[in-house]
Amino acid sequence: MAERGRGWARAVRGLLLDVSGVLYDSGADGGVPIAGSAEAVRRIKASGLKLQLCTNETQATRENFVRKLRAMGFDVSVAQVTAPAPAACRLLRERGLRPHLLVHDDLVPEFAEINKTNPNCVVLGDAAENFTYANLNKAFRLLIGMEKPVLISLGKGRYYKETDGLKLDVGAYMKALEYACDVQAEVVGKPAKRFFESALAELGVPPEQAIMIGDDIVNDVGGAQQCGMRALQVRTGKYRPSDENHPEVKPDAYVNNLAEAVDIILQEL
Amino acid sequence: MAERGRGWARAVRGLLLDVSGVLYDSGADGGVPIAGSAEAVRRIKASGLKLQLCTNETQATRENFVRKLRAMGFDVSVAQVTAPAPAACRLLRERGLRPHLLVHDDLVPEFAEINKTNPNCVVLGDAAENFTYANLNKAFRLLIGMEKPVLISLGKGRYYKETDGLKLDVGAYMKALEYACDVQAEVVGKPAKRFFESALAELGVPPEQAIMIGDDIVNDVGGAQQCGMRALQVRTGKYRPSDENHPEVKPDAYVNNLAEAVDIILQEL
Repeated sequence: MAERGRGWARAVRGLLLDVSGVLYDSGADGGVPIAGSAEAVRRIKASGLKLQLCTNETQATRENFVRKLRAMGFDVSVAQVTAPAPAACRLLRERGLRPHLLVHDDLVPEFAEINKTNPNCVVLGDAAENFTYANLNKAFRLLIGMEKPVLISLGKGRYYKETDGLKLDVGAYMKALEYACDVQAEVVGKPAKRFFESALAELGVPPEQAIMIGDDIVNDVGGAQQCGMRALQVRTGKYRPSDENHPEVKPDAYVNNLAEAVDIILQEL
Repeated sequence: MAERGRGWARAVRGLLLDVSGVLYDSGADGGVPIAGSAEAVRRIKASGLKLQLCTNETQATRENFVRKLRAMGFDVSVAQVTAPAPAACRLLRERGLRPHLLVHDDLVPEFAEINKTNPNCVVLGDAAENFTYANLNKAFRLLIGMEKPVLISLGKGRYYKETDGLKLDVGAYMKALEYACDVQAEVVGKPAKRFFESALAELGVPPEQAIMIGDDIVNDVGGAQQCGMRALQVRTGKYRPSDENHPEVKPDAYVNNLAEAVDIILQEL
């Protein structure tokens, strides 16, 4: 599928990379790099291609997230991370929205420069221990008191696994507030078109000159293609062989891993 | 509408009464009896008609609920209250289900005689302060770990008002768990047909010889009619004139209040 010289690798100026499942596999101890990925990132940078990470991570600031990646050997900077919280900040500024935050403590610094007085919307993240009865009622009262409630959700995941067991993810609490307020949340994060557009703006490359590389057939590949990008699926991370028969989404190519994708793209430069 | 001698009042052997909005109006101090309702309850009992209260109350045991009603002058007993928790117990016994409870502390005694070891379902009520992150994750893990998750919800309200402000009701948390587990909850309470059937079983009268009297056009009147009962809407409680143009539900009669309904029914005996 990923034969050299295919048209999909031509005229590329920038790459968007998913992180978990492409750069590293998450695990109990923070994660393990995927073989060849750290070297592939170095080769991208050396080639002059622009590089941006595009992740749905919302339990840490970009600073802490990058610290973890650098400790695993990835030469990336904070400015190279597109994550839901900064994308939400962009949206808040554009629309003059002042959020009430119901998010993880470790994410709060991302909103440091946003005006949060007299809130006219609620931003919901994976708040974890901050999902208390009192905090949920507070967010609900603010929403139901608005003439037109605005609920912005940093992702819509159902649940995830941590070392001490499964946890409800932000999507479950989003559904609770949607039902109580009879409102539909605006989801910031992959696969939202707006989120990929933010990543492209930060990459500084138009969609037709960018390639998204991810392990998620719907959220990475489908979402990027909806924005006019080419998109590759790696056969690492959450990739499953059945993805290759997906009824709706067909990647521009499959590659075994990030290293192979970079091999082919650099040969076409 | 409620003229004497109408057919709807004939051949009655038992009455189901909604409570809030029919017997009393709820308020900050626990509630105020609706004029004539306590006397109407006494007249029903004196007439030999069977009487059952049919309520969606889930923040108190029937014992405490009846204590409140008796303090307001209503001559009713615990056995005369059909509420979601006892109906859920009936359902649990019928299907051999062993619940994990996520409910209000004051409701727990209703489940005293139910086997709760090695749970194979979750019963969700308005747990209020018990809606903690840890408790929600625990209920979720039990559900997602079941081959076929069974979620039983005591009502599906969106929110309600207390003296210190609006609170998320059980329906919001039901939606969170439904989404996370990709399951549909079984709702126990009005307007579920099964709930009215429980009330009729406790009344000991077949549906064609029973009349439901309530203030809620959909949950009381519509639900009861679906079970083959006649149903009256009182013009007290949450009644609104626009209910009389409801597109789907048409009561067998409107009455100004419970006292008027009882006047008419007793004259037909």
